[in-house]
Amino acid sequence: MKNALLIRNVLLKGENVDVRISDGKFSCISSTPLSPLPDETLLDGSGFALTPAFYNLHGHAAMSLMRGFADDIELFAWLNEHVWPFEAKLKEEDIYNGTRLAILEMIKSGTVHFEDMYWFPQAAARAAKEMGIRARIGLLFLNSNEEAERQNRECLERIDEFRGKVQISCAPHAIYSVNKETLLKAKKIAEDNGLIIHIHVSETETEVKDSLRDFGATPVAYLDSLGLLKETTLAAHCVHLTDDDIKILAERKTFAVHVPGSNMKLASGVFPYKRCKAAGVRMVLGTDGCCSSNDLSMFQTMRQAALMAKVAWKDPVAAPAVEICQMASKFGAKAAGVNAGDIVVGKEADCLLIDLNVPCMVPCYDMVSNIVYSASNECVDTVICGGEILMRGRKVNGEEEIIAKARESVKRLTNS
Amino acid sequence: MKNALLIRNVLLKGENVDVRISDGKFSCISSTPLSPLPDETLLDGSGFALTPAFYNLHGHAAMSLMRGFADDIELFAWLNEHVWPFEAKLKEEDIYNGTRLAILEMIKSGTVHFEDMYWFPQAAARAAKEMGIRARIGLLFLNSNEEAERQNRECLERIDEFRGKVQISCAPHAIYSVNKETLLKAKKIAEDNGLIIHIHVSETETEVKDSLRDFGATPVAYLDSLGLLKETTLAAHCVHLTDDDIKILAERKTFAVHVPGSNMKLASGVFPYKRCKAAGVRMVLGTDGCCSSNDLSMFQTMRQAALMAKVAWKDPVAAPAVEICQMASKFGAKAAGVNAGDIVVGKEADCLLIDLNVPCMVPCYDMVSNIVYSASNECVDTVICGGEILMRGRKVNGEEEIIAKARESVKRLTNS
Repeated sequence: MKNALLIRNVLLKGENVDVRISDGKFSCISSTPLSPLPDETLLDGSGFALTPAFYNLHGHAAMSLMRGFADDIELFAWLNEHVWPFEAKLKEEDIYNGTRLAILEMIKSGTVHFEDMYWFPQAAARAAKEMGIRARIGLLFLNSNEEAERQNRECLERIDEFRGKVQISCAPHAIYSVNKETLLKAKKIAEDNGLIIHIHVSETETEVKDSLRDFGATPVAYLDSLGLLKETTLAAHCVHLTDDDIKILAERKTFAVHVPGSNMKLASGVFPYKRCKAAGVRMVLGTDGCCSSNDLSMFQTMRQAALMAKVAWKDPVAAPAVEICQMASKFGAKAAGVNAGDIVVGKEADCLLIDLNVPCMVPCYDMVSNIVYSASNECVDTVICGGEILMRGRKVNGEEEIIAKARESVKRLTNS
Repeated sequence: MKNALLIRNVLLKGENVDVRISDGKFSCISSTPLSPLPDETLLDGSGFALTPAFYNLHGHAAMSLMRGFADDIELFAWLNEHVWPFEAKLKEEDIYNGTRLAILEMIKSGTVHFEDMYWFPQAAARAAKEMGIRARIGLLFLNSNEEAERQNRECLERIDEFRGKVQISCAPHAIYSVNKETLLKAKKIAEDNGLIIHIHVSETETEVKDSLRDFGATPVAYLDSLGLLKETTLAAHCVHLTDDDIKILAERKTFAVHVPGSNMKLASGVFPYKRCKAAGVRMVLGTDGCCSSNDLSMFQTMRQAALMAKVAWKDPVAAPAVEICQMASKFGAKAAGVNAGDIVVGKEADCLLIDLNVPCMVPCYDMVSNIVYSASNECVDTVICGGEILMRGRKVNGEEEIIAKARESVKRLTNS
């Protein structure tokens, strides 16, 4: 049987249970021991808690190659002197190598799905498929960029290969880098192919100011007027929102992807957590790429989201752990289009074995509190994605080779 | 020879070197291979970087027993219904067990020194001595609290036992919980015994408002008028400071201990990083106790300090990695009274072997950037404190027993 697992004697919501996974889904959760079936892989869950996995709703995976490349530099110098010259040298193989490094880091921190937006989507998709993680790889849309168009065509011609764990999305970069015509083109391709839209929205004050000047509308209102804010759209960042923007996002049921690490590091601003929450905006979480926020751990992202909201609103009760954890898991899965995020029979078997003997998990009065406020990557022992084991005992298949290849790319890119 | 180590072929500041440690100090750093001496313990440094360790300048170690006990609750209910009833049940053995759990977590995240302020200092000191970490354990001063006085006397009678790695300090809790008479008593005991003072200062707006009402001065000005702000004093938090406060702290060379995790989680406010920096205040870092900020990782603390400063000042160049890393290491050692924090011959051998093959450390353009912006606890493979190996291959002696004993304490405390 495909992806058939039996996890025995694992802590789930305060109880010790046996959990059966069949055909990639949770098929039985039992408080009495289950007998293994033939061909079932057995996992001993003693000393572990079974929790939902994480869904990373915004990033640029292959930018892992630029981790720590140029930190603490003013934006203009950062882009002109460092990021763009580096990116100009990226080849398809570098994207593959960098995406694999990113996926390795994501798996090691409990992530089973990531949304991507970068160059050479076919290479990123290949990396994701090989490593068993879920992903939606964005087709990048920029103003009259023939290379991006060529890469997108290449993916669209093979669209039937992207219906499983690894899918594609339409990712027009942002309203300041993509004109109206290209935005509408991306929208049409999305509609024609049943793809979601993933776009940067209202990340900086400058973006909003320029939007008002150029389009007479905020980025949210402008995108809404073009019909890009759908129920499945991922609006990344959403830092600078008017009350009307928030009303639009809530009405359209568009997902606001909160990216706290990047917003803090680049000093973009504070996501309006309480206002979005009050209006019923669907909020999820993302890490961004390693160039703007240097790690890909959703533990970091959750903690940053919770802590930032509290201090920004001078309210220690704002953004409680349970809300933040759901943004990363249950709601994250919803935004990712995966029927997962909770460990119940019938859902996709995306889950983690969390090591309860790592000191930062001791004591464990409240699992969710520990996951949001004290857990670190090393608490994740095992990662299961659609019933497939992506990591066991913190070992991912081929990790040494993945790291070696990423280093080769970095060497070539920095020496050339 | 005591604490004699030879670390071979390790990356130090971009170069591969051999490093000899004798009598707990760095005695030779060589770019050509060194031959091992008799009785020298050999460590293979291949694949690792040698970096300074971390100094945690503010916390309440045994509060690890309350990690995640009562999160996301309003302050008044939190203290009255949860923290204080729990604390009332703490026995000396619980402090010992809780401090050991905290030390285990600190070692596992690269910390070699902690400043403590809590009940039963003799029990905390015993835990620190046994585990080989450096510490200054505070004698707790509160208004007419006979139990605290009894515990302090017990330590002071044995003061000669506290001259090595584990020392004691005078820790009057704060100006709102300790009256003038007791503050002066703490100061006298500190002066008579050559101890430093460790105190909470200007943590909340309420504290400052009440201080102005009750003493006609800010907490900083009031403490200065009493002579408590010395060159060795640790002023924990320092969130709400006037320009005059900052001038006083700079002139007195008092250490401002920035505690970003706690300040964010409890919504206390934003540490005035840029103003303190501009005025030349000596700034260091602390984690606080696990009840207010649930983990004890200085990686978290460094990242929170860097990211908060950037977003609060809308300046991506504020609090660069190199400054933040020094607060945790070089300046931290200075505040801890240890001649360490840099890996040069003659300094105390406090250092870490950082695993360069953990994905979040790849690539490694800039070690300091990676340490501040992407490293996680698991990057620390080996912890050396004064030449003594506290952790090797992420294993600490007796960790299973430490965790088991902490759980026993928690069980008793929550069942009684």
